[in-house]
Amino acid sequence: MTIKAVVFDAYGTLYDVQSVAAITEEAFPGYGDLITQIWRIKQLEYSWLRSLMGRYEDFSAITRESLNYTLKILGLKFDATAFERIMDKYVHLDLYPEARQALAALKGRKLAILSNGSSDMLNALVKNTGLDSVLDATISIDSKRIFKPSPQAYTLIEERLGVKPTEVLFVSSNPWDAIGAKSFGLNVAWIERVTPEAMALLCQKSDVVAPLTMFKALRMQMDEMDLQPDHRIGALTDLPKLAAV
Amino acid sequence: MTIKAVVFDAYGTLYDVQSVAAITEEAFPGYGDLITQIWRIKQLEYSWLRSLMGRYEDFSAITRESLNYTLKILGLKFDATAFERIMDKYVHLDLYPEARQALAALKGRKLAILSNGSSDMLNALVKNTGLDSVLDATISIDSKRIFKPSPQAYTLIEERLGVKPTEVLFVSSNPWDAIGAKSFGLNVAWIERVTPEAMALLCQKSDVVAPLTMFKALRMQMDEMDLQPDHRIGALTDLPKLAAV
Repeated sequence: MTIKAVVFDAYGTLYDVQSVAAITEEAFPGYGDLITQIWRIKQLEYSWLRSLMGRYEDFSAITRESLNYTLKILGLKFDATAFERIMDKYVHLDLYPEARQALAALKGRKLAILSNGSSDMLNALVKNTGLDSVLDATISIDSKRIFKPSPQAYTLIEERLGVKPTEVLFVSSNPWDAIGAKSFGLNVAWIERVTPEAMALLCQKSDVVAPLTMFKALRMQMDEMDLQPDHRIGALTDLPKLAAV
Repeated sequence: MTIKAVVFDAYGTLYDVQSVAAITEEAFPGYGDLITQIWRIKQLEYSWLRSLMGRYEDFSAITRESLNYTLKILGLKFDATAFERIMDKYVHLDLYPEARQALAALKGRKLAILSNGSSDMLNALVKNTGLDSVLDATISIDSKRIFKPSPQAYTLIEERLGVKPTEVLFVSSNPWDAIGAKSFGLNVAWIERVTPEAMALLCQKSDVVAPLTMFKALRMQMDEMDLQPDHRIGALTDLPKLAAV
């Protein structure tokens, strides 16, 4: 089987969502990491709940709603300026250190992003980080008005790239996204950023397990939904050997 | 407007899901509360993700998958007997202390449960706790093969009870369920088990915020999805005055 296209999730896969923590920490000293973790959990929840209720709002709106929720639950006071500064980071996220090198090594195949992000957010982010010259397409699920892991979201790959699901390698670090893509019929590589051994250490019993640890861990262990990704890789730079198969 | 039926969510609303903690604590000393919190988060996530992916499995299967996930992430070893003992608690959950009195005070109206639980789980639970003599119907979303907050789940109320959405008071302590019901067009009472003041205290800054506190808090603050329940009540016993309107 030939892989004709490698398609990446954006948030958490090519881009480090946790890189927001520097800005949130600056705005709310001592809370930086906690904000980004709660924010991410609620952002994902809202995307799924709105999809299920049939009340789509784009990812930019959801990202605002979930940030609002997060600051409220932590009892943090804020003004519009602080809020907008944090939001702005979402279009200036850091690439994972190995992302550029991995993308360069995949040259020759179609390369794209398929993300829950809104078109505006994604295009700005891709441009700000210079990936626009490397990617053949930046695909937002916006036009379908439903978020991943709905199968409708994944149909956009064939619609936009003209490549059949069996010839696509989809890459995500998000377990639910890897499973959604697999359920749809794509070849899937899941980036396991934490090994099971490290996970066990992270979560081992102590008098107080730090909430950050638990929140992070909850997003990093493969889910138990009777589907598994085809490949588990440790970093984006493991991709070229998979795509060569 | 006359309220002809009062319909309750089951888990977290009439029944205390956290009452599982006594069993999990017995099986895994020191981990009881943490297990129930992570379990609940993943159970909800799996219900939404499977609904979105179009891969419905009933709530019993999802409850097993999410318990598996939870024990795995905490690195806890277990055998089938321990697992089944914990699962069994789900059909023997504790009623909230005020539940019986509240239901009795609502006599004269149709009373029902609409729950994500599978028919088997719900019927056993209702029977084991003696609510079968009080309720006119115990409705599982099973037949729709999609979970709340999908609107399809809420259509079951009119289908089974013959009462129009505008004449139904739906009661849930789960923010996402209250919003889903409101989005569908029911009258909604949300049980706010923790006041905003208590929440602020729970989550106030400390060197280490306990993970339990954060996990609990994340399920108890009303969500920010531009919809609000019609009523906020502190306990089930506040219902009779609402239903009288």
